[in-house]
Amino acid sequence: MPNRRDLANAIRALSMDAVEAAKSGHPGAPMGMADIAEVLWNDFLRHNPANPRWVNRDRFVLSNGHGSMLLYSLLHLSGYDMPIEQIKAFRQLHSKTAGHPEAHEHPAIETTTGPLGQGLANAVGMALAEKVLAARFNRDGLNIVDHNTYVFLGDGCLMEGISHEVCSLAGTLKLGKLIALYDDNGISIDGNVRGWFTDDTRARFESYGWEVITGVDGHNAEAIKAAIVSAALDPDKPTLICCRTTIGFGAPTKAGKESAHGAPLGKDEIAGAREALGWPHAPFVVPDEIYEAWNANAKGGRWESEWNALFARYEQAHPELAAEFKRRLARELPADFGANALAYAHKLQAEGPVVASRKASQMALEAFGPLLPELIGGSADLAHSNLTLWKGSKNVNTAGGEGNYVYYGVREFGMSAIANGLALHGGFVPYDATFLVFSDYARNAVRMSALIPAQAIHVYTHDSIGLGEDGPTHQPVEHLAALRYIPNNPVWRPCDTVETAMAWRHAIERKAGPSCLVFSRQNLPHQLRTEQQLLDIERGGYVLLDPLNAKVELILIATGSEVGMTMDAARVLDGEGIGVRVVSMPCTQIFDAQPIEWREGVLPSWCRARVAIEAGVSDFWRKYVGLDGHVIGIDRFGASAPAEKLYPYFGFTVDKIVEAARKQIGR
Amino acid sequence: MPNRRDLANAIRALSMDAVEAAKSGHPGAPMGMADIAEVLWNDFLRHNPANPRWVNRDRFVLSNGHGSMLLYSLLHLSGYDMPIEQIKAFRQLHSKTAGHPEAHEHPAIETTTGPLGQGLANAVGMALAEKVLAARFNRDGLNIVDHNTYVFLGDGCLMEGISHEVCSLAGTLKLGKLIALYDDNGISIDGNVRGWFTDDTRARFESYGWEVITGVDGHNAEAIKAAIVSAALDPDKPTLICCRTTIGFGAPTKAGKESAHGAPLGKDEIAGAREALGWPHAPFVVPDEIYEAWNANAKGGRWESEWNALFARYEQAHPELAAEFKRRLARELPADFGANALAYAHKLQAEGPVVASRKASQMALEAFGPLLPELIGGSADLAHSNLTLWKGSKNVNTAGGEGNYVYYGVREFGMSAIANGLALHGGFVPYDATFLVFSDYARNAVRMSALIPAQAIHVYTHDSIGLGEDGPTHQPVEHLAALRYIPNNPVWRPCDTVETAMAWRHAIERKAGPSCLVFSRQNLPHQLRTEQQLLDIERGGYVLLDPLNAKVELILIATGSEVGMTMDAARVLDGEGIGVRVVSMPCTQIFDAQPIEWREGVLPSWCRARVAIEAGVSDFWRKYVGLDGHVIGIDRFGASAPAEKLYPYFGFTVDKIVEAARKQIGR
Repeated sequence: MPNRRDLANAIRALSMDAVEAAKSGHPGAPMGMADIAEVLWNDFLRHNPANPRWVNRDRFVLSNGHGSMLLYSLLHLSGYDMPIEQIKAFRQLHSKTAGHPEAHEHPAIETTTGPLGQGLANAVGMALAEKVLAARFNRDGLNIVDHNTYVFLGDGCLMEGISHEVCSLAGTLKLGKLIALYDDNGISIDGNVRGWFTDDTRARFESYGWEVITGVDGHNAEAIKAAIVSAALDPDKPTLICCRTTIGFGAPTKAGKESAHGAPLGKDEIAGAREALGWPHAPFVVPDEIYEAWNANAKGGRWESEWNALFARYEQAHPELAAEFKRRLARELPADFGANALAYAHKLQAEGPVVASRKASQMALEAFGPLLPELIGGSADLAHSNLTLWKGSKNVNTAGGEGNYVYYGVREFGMSAIANGLALHGGFVPYDATFLVFSDYARNAVRMSALIPAQAIHVYTHDSIGLGEDGPTHQPVEHLAALRYIPNNPVWRPCDTVETAMAWRHAIERKAGPSCLVFSRQNLPHQLRTEQQLLDIERGGYVLLDPLNAKVELILIATGSEVGMTMDAARVLDGEGIGVRVVSMPCTQIFDAQPIEWREGVLPSWCRARVAIEAGVSDFWRKYVGLDGHVIGIDRFGASAPAEKLYPYFGFTVDKIVEAARKQIGR
Repeated sequence: MPNRRDLANAIRALSMDAVEAAKSGHPGAPMGMADIAEVLWNDFLRHNPANPRWVNRDRFVLSNGHGSMLLYSLLHLSGYDMPIEQIKAFRQLHSKTAGHPEAHEHPAIETTTGPLGQGLANAVGMALAEKVLAARFNRDGLNIVDHNTYVFLGDGCLMEGISHEVCSLAGTLKLGKLIALYDDNGISIDGNVRGWFTDDTRARFESYGWEVITGVDGHNAEAIKAAIVSAALDPDKPTLICCRTTIGFGAPTKAGKESAHGAPLGKDEIAGAREALGWPHAPFVVPDEIYEAWNANAKGGRWESEWNALFARYEQAHPELAAEFKRRLARELPADFGANALAYAHKLQAEGPVVASRKASQMALEAFGPLLPELIGGSADLAHSNLTLWKGSKNVNTAGGEGNYVYYGVREFGMSAIANGLALHGGFVPYDATFLVFSDYARNAVRMSALIPAQAIHVYTHDSIGLGEDGPTHQPVEHLAALRYIPNNPVWRPCDTVETAMAWRHAIERKAGPSCLVFSRQNLPHQLRTEQQLLDIERGGYVLLDPLNAKVELILIATGSEVGMTMDAARVLDGEGIGVRVVSMPCTQIFDAQPIEWREGVLPSWCRARVAIEAGVSDFWRKYVGLDGHVIGIDRFGASAPAEKLYPYFGFTVDKIVEAARKQIGR
């Protein structure tokens, strides 16, 4: 039986060899955290390598994602579908072993990490998901939801602001099954962290209501084990275990130095490390007895079988709950959701309420919320501005299993990254909210929603200069375009209640990633539509108005709050006998993804007389109007004044649209 | 003599009246912090209303910027050029009294605030500027730099992650003259903060190395005064004073409730408040004796005169230092900087080094750094990747007056907002740095650089898939376009050492706001240029290659690392007898700001056969190539692999450019 250090050394050897072969990567963290990982994975982590998607597995997140070889080694050694060929192909095109862990590359990678602090935030979301799901579904001894969330993190994660946001909230939410292991190696890329990171981390985390265990020797298996046992004791407090480690442990001259952090150790150093660690095996060779000691398939299969038996009993006792649990964890919507949502849109089309689209969003939540217990909402302290609360909203911190609303506080970045964690855990479709301008604060988490991908619905209200008096700090200008440019991130900016309902429906049904829903502060008129036009909304862009008798000679394209005035302008132009078409374009990316026939049908190539109208940067619209068309946009910061003064001040009026349109066709 | 409460009530009355008149705004914070502000401004703040730009004034930052009426009231009452008409025009078009304090609207507004946490970060930057400048210039009793930085903040600022980043760093940097006053009113927009904010703030800030004074009654002038006196005692510790206050103090039914936070109180409530506060005066009327007690012109003039006398003695004793101090505070570059910089660019043009543009950036720092003692650099723990250290770099935390480099740690957002504070204080031209993809983390601070405006130079390296193995989490795709869309924020992406030097020169000379300098990880070839072409770089876009004998029939437009392969493609096309022009476009926004003649000269309207090549989202380039041109870009997330594999994988090759070019002209 190999000793624990040998087991850990397998991680060290694989990591340094893979980095060396790739000629790039980070050996320091895997070598430093190998002993901690060995103890956690072999003595604590409940998982099943044969089924990485087992719903009640413990979650493991590597927030210091640059140490990806630690994770890949663990997956390889413990028996996941992660063959040695993948380890050898570390950081190569088409391998599953990317430079940083990519969730879309392998089902056992719980989340994509690398952008520091966000893995920790995802873990907070996962632990919150576990807590709320457990409260919702567990019944008298039948704890079908009962797992821990473990997260590894480094100095970088702790320096990032997002760690404050999410750890503060995790304390408030009493996420006792969240256990964070801190790689306290004293080194970051620029050198010894004492030059720029002098926090008393124990005091800091205690101030958040965490249990903190300090002074753990991260190279002593017994000490690590004792700390993790102790971490699980208080059910109301998340735990931070501070492990003193040596970065690049085992490397003869680079251990403990930043030179071990982010570059291959080099041939001689690796040879020295093999010597020092007592690891005589060739690169990428792991002795069978080490593999056997690591392999978790037997116990993993047993754990899952036990859980399956538990779930069978649960199913017998609570068939409806069990069916609901299975539905939610399978990410299936209620069978009738789509039809119900469409019926609701039809109702709105018939009734034609005139409200702000943020209000229309709340109405959609009132309509869809009762159908979707998996919806879990929240706002960064702007509930009554974002209108994210609906009648069924209940505080996750006080409502137990009924909880479906998170009071995130003023923590936009943390909120969005927690939402990613909620989505990743399963059982929830999260939505979060802030003002559109503050999507900036959360921007990389939105990007991560798209990259992971995670079905997080990001609600952004107060979407333009139309918010008025709060002024330029609060008025988005570049944000619509900037969000649209994130791949796999559809941005909806609906023009009325009907488009709002359809946007919400699309976001809820879209499992392939996030959606951004962008809403106005101010009231928007209702638009008339045929049955077909209503369905066309799902195309992202569609013809809202065509000339009755004339041929199309001019196309006006608008979104959201500018559709109303564009329709008014079209009526003026129509009265002048001009053949004007109005295209409503609530989601440019969905429109772009339509077949060419659809796009040509809406924006025929032969018609170059085009004017786009949107209260955002104008250059974005050049892709639709080309060099010859015209854009009414805003390419400067806004101003503080009532919205009804700002719109004309910045050139958004019916007259200006009419004028630009006439000019396009030489009238 | 009016009592202190009366003085504070003047703020309360002006604030509630102005919000009422504007029919929007935030009365709660000004009414809650009025007593604190009264004590600070009347007993401590050294400033001169007649000269808001007096260089040794104490800085005052309202980080909870929604309480803008507090600041406007203070400026009005203490004698600044802020007449009652401006107070009456609160939140109206063209007034100086915007919904949130806008630095560009009034010289006494030290910084633009509203995006929570950033005012606090700016204040950290100002306090750091004071500390380094003092160490640099003060001499034996002649302390020409000696002022405090005061910052007001609320719960929102403390919840935001950026507060962690900058307060942690402020503790490390021992910014003892930074004094923060926390409006601990227990209320944020969603209600009582105990539901989402349960930090032990004292313990948290002590963990950062701050002095923390808690339990101060924020409505007791003596208690406030004692706390501020005590705050100044420890020269090595920033101080947080936690003041228990009642939001909307004085409002009979709304005080202490979120309803006082962000909406007009209403006529009856205001009448009740007047009653309760004993303020019988009509709206916007302040009795003369109150004005007299507030007016700080006499003492302000005396303070500045005393300082002028001190400076005169200093000037006599240290004429060169004094001249240098005046130059730096006047934001004047050394007279010969421009010529020296140009000479350096010429030298590079002649020598033609082939390096990564991040290395070219470091070379520019080596060349310009010795000329510019006002340059203060830093990186978010990526010094050796961003290449932001040059031979003259000295740690601000250990080098005293020689300090010109901040080890920011892994704190991108905090770093960028601190840089804004350094720029705002005066005496410095800050640059900061991270990977381009992590500009996301700092995005709103970059926006604020542009809006304030503050001359912060944001350096972003590893600018595309060209960074290779770190993979999609680290590979920017949408970031170039997204940064370019921020108004007043020129983004430079140079193609070689010469363009890099010219970009740095432009950024250093540009006082009107920030610049983003975007550099490659990988080596870039050198480009040949005539004398005129070298000067044309400053136009943002210029003709790098024209056909020798043929007429232009095709234009290729490229930036940064794609210029080299575009030039190679042009040579192939030229060999085929095609009249191809290559436009290098290092800064699209500067190009767009050129006269039409220049733009037409570079991109003549008659030539629509255009191909743009940039390793970023393609749609951005439609503004230059229109609907008929072609863009070689990348509209999906990247991948982890060596750069030389990724470029062809994502379609960036000479062959693909040649192919697209031929297609454009039907060959």
